[in-house]
Amino acid sequence: MASAFVKRVVVVAAIVVGVVGVMMTTVAAKRNGQAASPSVGSAGIRLPPRYRDWALVSVAHEAGSFNDIRAILGNDMAIRAYRKGQLPFPDGTIIARVAWSYVPSEENDKVFGKAQSFIAGAPTNVQLMVKDSKKYAATGGWGYAQFTKGKADAVDAAKCYSCHEPVKARDFIFTKYAPS
Amino acid sequence: MASAFVKRVVVVAAIVVGVVGVMMTTVAAKRNGQAASPSVGSAGIRLPPRYRDWALVSVAHEAGSFNDIRAILGNDMAIRAYRKGQLPFPDGTIIARVAWSYVPSEENDKVFGKAQSFIAGAPTNVQLMVKDSKKYAATGGWGYAQFTKGKADAVDAAKCYSCHEPVKARDFIFTKYAPS
Repeated sequence: MASAFVKRVVVVAAIVVGVVGVMMTTVAAKRNGQAASPSVGSAGIRLPPRYRDWALVSVAHEAGSFNDIRAILGNDMAIRAYRKGQLPFPDGTIIARVAWSYVPSEENDKVFGKAQSFIAGAPTNVQLMVKDSKKYAATGGWGYAQFTKGKADAVDAAKCYSCHEPVKARDFIFTKYAPS
Repeated sequence: MASAFVKRVVVVAAIVVGVVGVMMTTVAAKRNGQAASPSVGSAGIRLPPRYRDWALVSVAHEAGSFNDIRAILGNDMAIRAYRKGQLPFPDGTIIARVAWSYVPSEENDKVFGKAQSFIAGAPTNVQLMVKDSKKYAATGGWGYAQFTKGKADAVDAAKCYSCHEPVKARDFIFTKYAPS
C-alpha cells in the first residue's frame, strides 16, 4: 500500500514538473519574441523580431507568377555595408525581402483620374538571407529562409544559392541600394 | 580729408563684417547638415537628415506619367501611430514618399527566364508631409514639401491639400501601413 502510494505521488509529481516545464519554456520563448518551433526556419534561421523596422534597401515589382510588390530591408550592418559599397557583406548581415500581392488602387486611381496606381495588398511571405561565411560556407556564405505569416517554410537553400550565383561578384545579392 | 578717411574705414569695415557674417552663417548651416536656402522647402520644411533610415510604411507603383516605383517611409512617431491605428496622426509626424524611375531589370529577368522584373532606377524626388495642426491648419494640419536631389522644389500646398481631401477620414493620408 505504502509503495503504491509513493508510486502515485511520484507519477503526479512527474506530471506537474513536466507541465510546469513546458509552460516555463513557452513563457521564455514568448518573452524572447519567438513562437515555438514553427518559427525556426531553414538553417536554424529565425525571423528577427524587429525586421519590419529596418531601413529600406530598395523596392521592386515582380510580375509573372509572383505578381507581387516588394521591399528589400536590411539590418544596420547590411545598410552600412551597402552605403560604403563594402563587399563581401560582413558576417551578421541580414537582408529581408518583404512582399505583398500587387493590387490596383481604385481610391488612388479616382484621384489621379486614370488607372495607374498599384499598391501593396495582402502580405505574401518574407525571405531572409543571413550572412555567416563559416556556417553557410556551402551556399556562398549565406543562409536562406522563408516565412509565411511568421511561420517558417521549408526551403531548399541549394536551390536559392544556384539562382543567386549569377551575382556572385556582388556577394550573391541581386538588389542594389537605391539612393534618394 | 580726415572725414573721407574715416568714411572709407567705415565702409571697408562694414564690407568685412558683412562677408565674415555670410561666411559664418554658411559654416553654421553646413555644421547643421543643411545647405543654405535651397534646402528649405515650402512651409519652411527641411529634408530630415536621416529620413532614409526610417521604417517602411508601404510600397507602390504609379504608372502613367509618373512611371515610378515608390516607398513610403515614416519617422518613429508616424510608424507608432500607424501601428496603433491612431488618428489623427500626432503633431511631429513626418511621412516621406521616396520615388525612383520604374525600370525593367534585365539581370533579374535572365534569372527568372522571362521579362517580369521591375526595379528602382534613378531617384525622382522625395515628398514630405509634416504634421503640425496649428502651423498648417489651413491645409488640414499638414505641411507639404518636395525635394529633388536634396534641393527644395516650389510646391503649392493648397493643391496638395485638395488632392488629399478625399482621404480626410484617414487624416489626409492615402497610404495604409503594410503589415507583413
